[in-house]
Amino acid sequence: MRKIEHLGIAVADLEKSNALFKKLLGSAHYKEETVEGEGVKTSFFQIGETKIELLEATREDSPIAKFISKKSEGIHHIAFDVQDIYAEVERLKNEGFEILNETPKEGADNKLVVFLHPRSTNGVLVELCQER
Amino acid sequence: MRKIEHLGIAVADLEKSNALFKKLLGSAHYKEETVEGEGVKTSFFQIGETKIELLEATREDSPIAKFISKKSEGIHHIAFDVQDIYAEVERLKNEGFEILNETPKEGADNKLVVFLHPRSTNGVLVELCQER
Repeated sequence: MRKIEHLGIAVADLEKSNALFKKLLGSAHYKEETVEGEGVKTSFFQIGETKIELLEATREDSPIAKFISKKSEGIHHIAFDVQDIYAEVERLKNEGFEILNETPKEGADNKLVVFLHPRSTNGVLVELCQER
Repeated sequence: MRKIEHLGIAVADLEKSNALFKKLLGSAHYKEETVEGEGVKTSFFQIGETKIELLEATREDSPIAKFISKKSEGIHHIAFDVQDIYAEVERLKNEGFEILNETPKEGADNKLVVFLHPRSTNGVLVELCQER
């Protein structure tokens, strides 16, 4: 774990939230990207070495739609930058963490990603990500 | 807003969670601190330029105890590092954000802190903090 790569925030309306976070952070998002496999449209803001990723659901069965209907808008996950995602998954499995997808999958922003189940991480949805 | 200063995570048992986050991050917390005014005992982990702050309630009417009983353990707030907290509060008030305490108060880690109400920030509890 080298740094916090980004923080994911679930939002109901990406356009409205892009305007809100521009006011909050004092600078605009620098890109948008849709990840069909996850059913999300995302936007990215840079803040120091970290990014804030806003996530809007593109369909009803998207994990983000489910999150918002259960918990309402808010912080969805923390993503950590890792050097070798395969080695890190192995290490965390041996430490007893519950891995949601042992085979890294394609995430936004040209990354390979793996998620850990929040029930093994104090209620925090943790993403590992490695630049492809 | 210069960087994410820390991420606050509400936990039920600080000692257990210190051990858990040591396994997750691969390094131990470097300090603990109790903030009587907020009814919390905290521990800090460094990760890149950001910190992770674990928060355990020290009494029943602590905001952290209320958060856990309502939402369970998990990410509690994002704190941004600001250069001039008074100017930033003024700027955000003018942008329409709802300030929870307009007069900065004493937080953990030798900081002056101000909170924004989550209902004005997409469900995210935002903390501004400035080194004292």
